[in-house]
Amino acid sequence: MLSMAHPNVYNSCQMIGFDEIRKLSQVTPSKIVLLVMDGVGGLPHPKTGKTELEAARCPNLDQLANESICGMQYTVSPGITPGSAPGHMSLFGYDPLTYPLGRGIVEALGLDIEVGPGDVVARGNFCTVDDTGHIADRRAGRLASEKSRELCELLNSKVKVDGCATEFFAGKEHRFVVRFRGDGLSDEVSDTDPQHEGMLPPGAQALTPAAQKTTTIVNTLIEQSRDLLKDKHPANMFLLRGFSQHPDYPSLQHIYQLSPACIATYPMYRGVSRVVGMDILPAGETLETQLETLKKNYDRYDYFFVHFKKTDARGEDGDFEAKVKAVEEFDAALPGFLELNPDVVIVTGDHSTPAGLAGHSWHTIPVMLRAQYCRKDEVTRFSEPACLRGGLGQFHATELMPLAMANALKLNKFGA
Amino acid sequence: MLSMAHPNVYNSCQMIGFDEIRKLSQVTPSKIVLLVMDGVGGLPHPKTGKTELEAARCPNLDQLANESICGMQYTVSPGITPGSAPGHMSLFGYDPLTYPLGRGIVEALGLDIEVGPGDVVARGNFCTVDDTGHIADRRAGRLASEKSRELCELLNSKVKVDGCATEFFAGKEHRFVVRFRGDGLSDEVSDTDPQHEGMLPPGAQALTPAAQKTTTIVNTLIEQSRDLLKDKHPANMFLLRGFSQHPDYPSLQHIYQLSPACIATYPMYRGVSRVVGMDILPAGETLETQLETLKKNYDRYDYFFVHFKKTDARGEDGDFEAKVKAVEEFDAALPGFLELNPDVVIVTGDHSTPAGLAGHSWHTIPVMLRAQYCRKDEVTRFSEPACLRGGLGQFHATELMPLAMANALKLNKFGA
Repeated sequence: MLSMAHPNVYNSCQMIGFDEIRKLSQVTPSKIVLLVMDGVGGLPHPKTGKTELEAARCPNLDQLANESICGMQYTVSPGITPGSAPGHMSLFGYDPLTYPLGRGIVEALGLDIEVGPGDVVARGNFCTVDDTGHIADRRAGRLASEKSRELCELLNSKVKVDGCATEFFAGKEHRFVVRFRGDGLSDEVSDTDPQHEGMLPPGAQALTPAAQKTTTIVNTLIEQSRDLLKDKHPANMFLLRGFSQHPDYPSLQHIYQLSPACIATYPMYRGVSRVVGMDILPAGETLETQLETLKKNYDRYDYFFVHFKKTDARGEDGDFEAKVKAVEEFDAALPGFLELNPDVVIVTGDHSTPAGLAGHSWHTIPVMLRAQYCRKDEVTRFSEPACLRGGLGQFHATELMPLAMANALKLNKFGA
Repeated sequence: MLSMAHPNVYNSCQMIGFDEIRKLSQVTPSKIVLLVMDGVGGLPHPKTGKTELEAARCPNLDQLANESICGMQYTVSPGITPGSAPGHMSLFGYDPLTYPLGRGIVEALGLDIEVGPGDVVARGNFCTVDDTGHIADRRAGRLASEKSRELCELLNSKVKVDGCATEFFAGKEHRFVVRFRGDGLSDEVSDTDPQHEGMLPPGAQALTPAAQKTTTIVNTLIEQSRDLLKDKHPANMFLLRGFSQHPDYPSLQHIYQLSPACIATYPMYRGVSRVVGMDILPAGETLETQLETLKKNYDRYDYFFVHFKKTDARGEDGDFEAKVKAVEEFDAALPGFLELNPDVVIVTGDHSTPAGLAGHSWHTIPVMLRAQYCRKDEVTRFSEPACLRGGLGQFHATELMPLAMANALKLNKFGA
């Protein structure tokens, strides 16, 4: 028996495209359940040498690994640390480098803001400018969320721009989103956030002639707001960036002929799911309510995305023990999901969030897929070192959807 | 909803192209022998947990694995189940997504039909239409092959289309091929097979202006045939699809400076070999006659493709034990091939055909390559789990040809 992980050649041929896979896809009664433990990948604790997954007592995850084909995946590109949006786009089969999501739209989705076709959204920061208008603090001293809400209400009651309905939506601390709604808008508008302090905020500029109207609207909104905010130090100005529209990407229905549904407790993940065409089901606040929803809707869909946030949140906190507990919490809930006996069940993450780094990281992510014909391997633990020896090798996460489809027997043969 | 192709190139690195590799290739006396056990990959038997390869007693394959560098490969894209034509194109170094073969040409190659430059071929189905011309059965009750032959003879004797020689070739059951031979033909013609019953067969349509002449010829042929078949219920009509010409792809001679030869007992594999420029040698019916041919021609070529069908055929039958026996039959014949001591010998398959699925599948395929400088690994068994730990890792099969060339010392250094 060999002790090393098999080497992995990152593949160099093109992956099958959406047009081709659409021709191969067929509707069948089989069910695919994707369970995402956000940020599940970790790093060894300096004292024990064990990662969060290795330190956790998770008999159900291990049993599932024993019945699965396992591997390690990356969601963007080797060495690249993914944000939550690209991480999930990749899990849903969309290369995040080909199917990017603008900062404005991601922020809007994260606040559950309705973004219609033609709307433009931008991410905003309340900031502090000095008497000469130069930026003194890009975050206005990390303004309290409550204060941010008041300012958004003030702006919504007073700002009126001809030819466009504008609305401010407060986010966390100094953050907000502004939505522009009207005819003929474009997102080809430059940022007004120079990303550095000590500078004058530049006016918005049209990046294409078609964006001239929108640019005028944006600059009018900024002028009116500047007057309204001038006595509101430290939040006496704001900066806008990431102008974007709802991307019109092909849906999972279109590409794979699936009926997909999202069961996520956080708005951000519901937002990304909406982009790829999933129905958004009420998720409640816990894995228990998520499971209830899954059971209630099991006959209505054939693809379910279930999102678990705590593994990422505790990793971001830098709290190794709490992340271990989050894994164990997921493990305890797992049998409920498996009881439904989905034809294909997948457990993975959208990126790693090692407690030791207290943030997202570039490290590959363990993944397991169980199905009747999955060709299970010899892996018996759901952990980074164990999955490294799995039958899936190391691969780009966009390959996961075709593998899920194949294992659900939803793909016809390519070529004669 | 979008229907456009977002061309997906998912990997960060491109594989070396044909133009570049042509510049590196050199003619040497060394020999490459590619032994393809069709559909060799399998799945564990539910009772024993062993795949067909693991269940087989194959000391010669295992000994070769012990002397080889091993790995697992896929021929199209992860999760995609390849047909025989794309599977083999990939083994010969041609990405099947870039070098597709139309259904008409594959069917024609499979029937050993001569397809010249400029000829157009289409796959046909005899079908049943009702009194109103609507399709009642797309396969005419899976017409007997004998009956199909009679109808093709009738059509050949009566159908005469101005400006084009047409010929019908009977295939298995309701299937046939029609070949159009004349000047200025194009394959940009739409199918007349709607792929659904209850519909009127649509007339052929020109997909480009250049295909107008061919389209008129096709529709004339259909009109004449309709009259000739009208009393031949259940085969009182036919449907055509996959209009295609012989693809003018660069040959193995051109790309690699090889003199390649095919020793295959089935026409389909000879056909694909012809597309990439191989000489077709008489193969007889068995591995013994194939070996004789190899020996007789060993000095005349430097690349040999030897095809063994039974592993796939018994897998398609769903007969696990018979597939195990087919592996053992190949194993028994292997020493004869190794006696020639080729500089590079490769054993692999074009896809998996697990008996448990009774058909082609998406599962990766074991592969081994023996050569003096192959950097052999610790694998000592030719099986799926063993090869998973091999030195080649998991890779796209189009990488096999450059590896074979390198191991034959037929590739010069890239760059200074």
